[in-house]
Amino acid sequence: MDTLTCLGHFLTSRAVIMDSNKVVENIYLLVIVTLISVLQNAFFAQKVEKECRSQNTQTSSFERVSCANRNCMDAYPTFLAVMWCAGLCLNQAPAAFAGVIYLLVRQKYFVGYMGQTSQSTPGYLFGKRIIFFLFLMCLVGIFNYLLLRYYGSDYKEHVQTIASAASTLLLLP
Amino acid sequence: MDTLTCLGHFLTSRAVIMDSNKVVENIYLLVIVTLISVLQNAFFAQKVEKECRSQNTQTSSFERVSCANRNCMDAYPTFLAVMWCAGLCLNQAPAAFAGVIYLLVRQKYFVGYMGQTSQSTPGYLFGKRIIFFLFLMCLVGIFNYLLLRYYGSDYKEHVQTIASAASTLLLLP
Amino acid sequence: MDTLTCLGHFLTSRAVIMDSNKVVENIYLLVIVTLISVLQNAFFAQKVEKECRSQNTQTSSFERVSCANRNCMDAYPTFLAVMWCAGLCLNQAPAAFAGVIYLLVRQKYFVGYMGQTSQSTPGYLFGKRIIFFLFLMCLVGIFNYLLLRYYGSDYKEHVQTIASAASTLLLLP
Repeated sequence: MDTLTCLGHFLTSRAVIMDSNKVVENIYLLVIVTLISVLQNAFFAQKVEKECRSQNTQTSSFERVSCANRNCMDAYPTFLAVMWCAGLCLNQAPAAFAGVIYLLVRQKYFVGYMGQTSQSTPGYLFGKRIIFFLFLMCLVGIFNYLLLRYYGSDYKEHVQTIASAASTLLLLP
Repeated sequence: MDTLTCLGHFLTSRAVIMDSNKVVENIYLLVIVTLISVLQNAFFAQKVEKECRSQNTQTSSFERVSCANRNCMDAYPTFLAVMWCAGLCLNQAPAAFAGVIYLLVRQKYFVGYMGQTSQSTPGYLFGKRIIFFLFLMCLVGIFNYLLLRYYGSDYKEHVQTIASAASTLLLLP
Repeated sequence: MDTLTCLGHFLTSRAVIMDSNKVVENIYLLVIVTLISVLQNAFFAQKVEKECRSQNTQTSSFERVSCANRNCMDAYPTFLAVMWCAGLCLNQAPAAFAGVIYLLVRQKYFVGYMGQTSQSTPGYLFGKRIIFFLFLMCLVGIFNYLLLRYYGSDYKEHVQTIASAASTLLLLP
C-alpha cells in the first residue's frame, strides 16, 4: 500500500505540472482571437480619441465614430461570452474561426459606419449569423454532455467534425 | 519501473479524455445562463433597432429604449464576471440560480423603463442584491480555499450547502 | 489487471476531488482582482446614480460623471479579457498585480474626470501601458506553449520569473 500511495503522489504531482499546459492547450486559439479583438478595440478607441481631439471641426464625424464604437462595444461582451462558451463546450477550432470572421465583419461595420451615412447605414446589429452559429455550438455541446451523462453515449467527435465543417459555411456572403 | 511509466501514460491519456467532459460538467449550468442572457441581449438589441428605424415618429421612445439598453449593457460584464467567479470558486448551481433571477430582474427593469416615465423611474442600478449575493459567494469560496491551503481544513461541502439554501432567499421580493 | 483498473478509478476520483480546489488555486488572485474591480464599478455606478437624481441643479456635472463612467465601462471587458488570458496562459501573480495597478489608474482617471475640465482632460484612453503589458504576457505564454508543443522546450519557469520581475516596472510613473 505504501507503493500505491507513493505512486499516487507521483501521478498527482505530474498531473499538476501537466495541467497548466493542458489548460493552455484547450484555449490557445481562443486566446489568440481574443488578443486580435483587443487590438481591434484599441484601433477603434484610437479613432475615437483622434476624432475627439479634432472635435471642433466636424462634430458629425465624431458622433459617427463614437456611435460606431459604442455599438461595437455594446456587442463585445456578448461575443466574448458566446465564443468562449462555444470553445470550451465543444471545440476551440471552429469557435476561433467564427470569432475571426466576426472580427472581420466588425471591422467592415466600423469602417462602413464612418463613411457617408447616405450610402451606408449598417443599423445597430451586425454579425448576427456568427453569434447564432456560436450559440448553436454551445447548445450542441451542452446537449452532448447531457446525453453522455444520462444515456452514456458520447457523440463528441462526430459533433466536433460537423461543427468544423459547418463553420466554413460562415464564409458564404 | 517500465510498468510504472506505462501506467502513467495510460492514466494521463485517460485524464485528458475525461478532462474535456469534466470541464463541461463544472460549468454547464453557467453556460446555460450565459446563453439565456445572450438571448435577452439579442431581444434588447432588436428592440433598439426597431425603435431606431421608426425614429422619426417618437424620439423620446427611442431615447428611453436606448438608455435602458445602455444601462443593461453597462452592467452586463460585471454580472458575467461575478457569476462565473462565484460558479468556479464555490458551486455552479446557486450561482446559476442567482443568474436566472438577475435576468428576470433585468427583464422587468427593461420593460419598466420602456413604459411611462412618470410611473416607472427604475434608476440606473438594478439587481444590486443579486450581485451582492454572488460577490459574497466568491469571497466565501476564496476564503475557504485559503483556509484549506494554510490550515488544511476544508469546509467546501458545508459552504456549498449553505450557499444553495441561501440562494432561495433571493426569491423574496 | 484488476488492480490496475481499481487503481485507475481510485486515482481518477481523487483527481476529481482535487480538481475543484486546483481550479481555484490557479485563479484565486485573478478572482480577487475581479472582485475589487466589481466594487469599483459599483462605486462608479453609485456616483452616476447620485448625480442622476440631483440632475436638475448641474447638468454638466452629471454629463462628466456619466461620460467618465461610460469610458471606464467601454474598456472594462477588454481589461477583464486580457487580464484573465494573461493569468491563465502564463502566471496569475504578475497578471493580478498589473490588474491592481490598472484599477488604481482607472480610479485616478475617474476622479480626474469629475474635477474641473480645464485642469484635467484625461482623454478617452487610459491604462494603455498596463493593457500592453498584459497583452505581451499573453503573447509570451502562447509562444511558449507553441515552442513546447513543436520543439519540446519548456521555458515557462524562466518566463514566469521574468514576467514577475517586469511587472514591477509598471510602478514607474
